Amino acid sequence: MSTANTISISSPADFHVHLRQGDLSELVTPHVREGGFRLAYVMPNLIPPITTTVQALEYKSMLERIDPKTEFLMTLYLSPNLTPDEIRKAKRAGIVGVKSYPRGVTTNSDGGIESYEAYYPIFEAMQEVDMVLNLHGEVPSDASANIHENPCSLSPLRIVLEHATTRVAVETVKSLGSTVACTITAHHLALTVDDWAGQSWNYCKPVAKFPDDREALHEVIREGHPRFFLGSDSAPHPSIKKSTSSPEHGCAAGIYTSPILLALTTHLLESFGALDKLEGFVSKNGRAFYKKEVTADDAMVLLRRRNSNTNTSKRYSYSWKGQEVIPFWSGVDLEWEIID
Amino acid sequence: MSTANTISISSPADFHVHLRQGDLSELVTPHVREGGFRLAYVMPNLIPPITTTVQALEYKSMLERIDPKTEFLMTLYLSPNLTPDEIRKAKRAGIVGVKSYPRGVTTNSDGGIESYEAYYPIFEAMQEVDMVLNLHGEVPSDASANIHENPCSLSPLRIVLEHATTRVAVETVKSLGSTVACTITAHHLALTVDDWAGQSWNYCKPVAKFPDDREALHEVIREGHPRFFLGSDSAPHPSIKKSTSSPEHGCAAGIYTSPILLALTTHLLESFGALDKLEGFVSKNGRAFYKKEVTADDAMVLLRRRNSNTNTSKRYSYSWKGQEVIPFWSGVDLEWEIID
Repeated sequence: MSTANTISISSPADFHVHLRQGDLSELVTPHVREGGFRLAYVMPNLIPPITTTVQALEYKSMLERIDPKTEFLMTLYLSPNLTPDEIRKAKRAGIVGVKSYPRGVTTNSDGGIESYEAYYPIFEAMQEVDMVLNLHGEVPSDASANIHENPCSLSPLRIVLEHATTRVAVETVKSLGSTVACTITAHHLALTVDDWAGQSWNYCKPVAKFPDDREALHEVIREGHPRFFLGSDSAPHPSIKKSTSSPEHGCAAGIYTSPILLALTTHLLESFGALDKLEGFVSKNGRAFYKKEVTADDAMVLLRRRNSNTNTSKRYSYSWKGQEVIPFWSGVDLEWEIID
Repeated sequence: MSTANTISISSPADFHVHLRQGDLSELVTPHVREGGFRLAYVMPNLIPPITTTVQALEYKSMLERIDPKTEFLMTLYLSPNLTPDEIRKAKRAGIVGVKSYPRGVTTNSDGGIESYEAYYPIFEAMQEVDMVLNLHGEVPSDASANIHENPCSLSPLRIVLEHATTRVAVETVKSLGSTVACTITAHHLALTVDDWAGQSWNYCKPVAKFPDDREALHEVIREGHPRFFLGSDSAPHPSIKKSTSSPEHGCAAGIYTSPILLALTTHLLESFGALDKLEGFVSKNGRAFYKKEVTADDAMVLLRRRNSNTNTSKRYSYSWKGQEVIPFWSGVDLEWEIID
């Protein structure tokens, strides 16, 4: 539902978010709700990674203590420690998915995997109990094979290809059946390679690609394809790690969008003529694939067009106990804002 | 000439180098010779740009005061101020080339040009007096046209396509006649996109491309193609500008190789089986195209294979009056070193 200047969205759900640990987690977890979202699908790449049901439930309790109102869907990190029995136990405990990281491509992914064959028994168990496999849509670079970005595919398990960035990935997912879906981040709707070349604040993994790839992301949202939905991959890093590189160590990969996510996504969808697909993209499509109906009482989130007289173009940040994070597009005045 | 563990090279010449201004120039100009080179083809993108013969000669005098032993070949910055008469005057004063920058793609290129038509009278005068046109092989990005990198071409003027980074550029230059040559930097023989993603110290313009592009650069050197030669594009920036990005401003683009240039180039050519083409690449090919015979007395430069017992893997830098620069691969032990 939308009129010219206000929009209401039924219970926005972010199907890919990093909520970190310790003080940084205290700082960023409330931003999911402040950014307009009622549900967070939580990534397991902590130190150590979340590989057991017990760890996942402990982590969930901690997150609920920080923000009791947000619904947290938990995931396990695919690793050799995982067993079919643990999968069944996880399902009974309400854990929704298993995240597979290729080794070494993202923050805390050193325990990632290189070959899927050893995991077929796990995948069978996941299929039995209807858990979702979340594939990090990126393979480690291999110069000899000229490999930089690749979507992976498996079947007939329910699979989500995470954070698609290329036309090839979009077309691959579209060509597959109803068991395969795909998340798209907000920032990949805005960025191309030119934006992160030499600008560490726009650097994330997978990297933003070429204008034609970004156009493919826009197109699939504009057509309202039901198997594509928002997973922000919102990934906070302390600002010092985003702003500096030494010759030995580059900057941290990750873009932090949680605090402004719904307004940012609305702004971007309007920019490429997809405002009428907003509710599908940020709520209905993902909820349908994950079978997560809206349950919260305060499910509706309202947005209004901002008064441009209030534009400031001022950079802002969030701090807590010595942790500082600066969101994506800090200092950019968005067209939309949430009405509290 | 080479034996297993020593190599002698006749008067190495770097046909593309940035020597800057002020204290930074004092710091980096001697590094050309320390890095093993006897001739520097000097870029004109200062503030303000070098657009007249008078400016170029003043700049040359300053460089010669800093290092009387290095031969400096001077260039003018192509701009609407340039006239055919100024071209003839420049030629008489020993200026060798005119550098054309597309607007805005590199350090101090805001005065760059967008269309070549207005410059045809200049090009005619350059052809008359046998000056070289140096084309910055990069066009500004244009999302609507999906443009990121493009070689340009013109004829029948003598033209050098600077710092080729793609297979397409290499193949284009190979397909053209004897009036078109091409420089290749040392760092583009080492880097691909993965090296500068999130690592500002490896970020330069044009950016390093994909492994297959790098392979094309290796191939054309390995085959000893006479119209391809070294132009380091060595581009020092104060280390603070290389190491930091704010959300509003990215890091400086540029890689600094002068102080280690000959040893680095030797190391790299050996790594891809082109050590026997070293003298052609770093001296003879470029000198032949630019018609610059070896004149200096101390023309021979000797290299020897380093004793790996002396490896330190320690980062080093150069400082002068508050300016600090850190070279490319600082902390990497090269296979070769110059014998003083």
